[in-house]
Amino acid sequence: MQCFVNVLEKVRFGADKLCKTNLFETTRMFCDLYGFEPGQAQSSHVHEASDKVYYVIDGKGVFRVGDEERTVGAGHAVFVPAGRLHAVHNLGPSRLVVLVFMAPKP
Amino acid sequence: MQCFVNVLEKVRFGADKLCKTNLFETTRMFCDLYGFEPGQAQSSHVHEASDKVYYVIDGKGVFRVGDEERTVGAGHAVFVPAGRLHAVHNLGPSRLVVLVFMAPKP
Repeated sequence: MQCFVNVLEKVRFGADKLCKTNLFETTRMFCDLYGFEPGQAQSSHVHEASDKVYYVIDGKGVFRVGDEERTVGAGHAVFVPAGRLHAVHNLGPSRLVVLVFMAPKP
Repeated sequence: MQCFVNVLEKVRFGADKLCKTNLFETTRMFCDLYGFEPGQAQSSHVHEASDKVYYVIDGKGVFRVGDEERTVGAGHAVFVPAGRLHAVHNLGPSRLVVLVFMAPKP
């Protein structure tokens, strides 16, 4: 696995749904990069035994964690503890780019 | 623990050494924010059972992972697998701000 990555060169987008690109992965964690076109979302879901951190690199998104929902932009981080429902929605007008860490890998 | 954090508002710097600010922490992982003044460094060290990811938010730094050393700036990520020597050095002239994930928490 490559140790040095230019993250912005790795961002991909898909016409149909958010596009996930894996950057690093071990048994202990993974680090992905998500590209959302305007209107795309990650549906509400739960990881029962993994914690997640989102870090917004570009654009802005509506992040829901449990009962809390906020619109946040570049330079904001969102923490999702194991067992908590969470979702992301890019209402546009820009593309949304998010770095995602999860531990352990589910 | 707060789930939504404006990361750039949390950055701190110290006159004597790099300043670490914890953003999120569980038994599975932690997420810290490091602020390096020009000339400050994180000395070479190893985590025997934890993987680490650095993500450069601002400035640029010299990152060493094992035998590989590269100067990388904002938008670059550096992966350090468990058991691998690693170090960071801010040669300046700007401040260096780095998001750090480790799993599991050592």
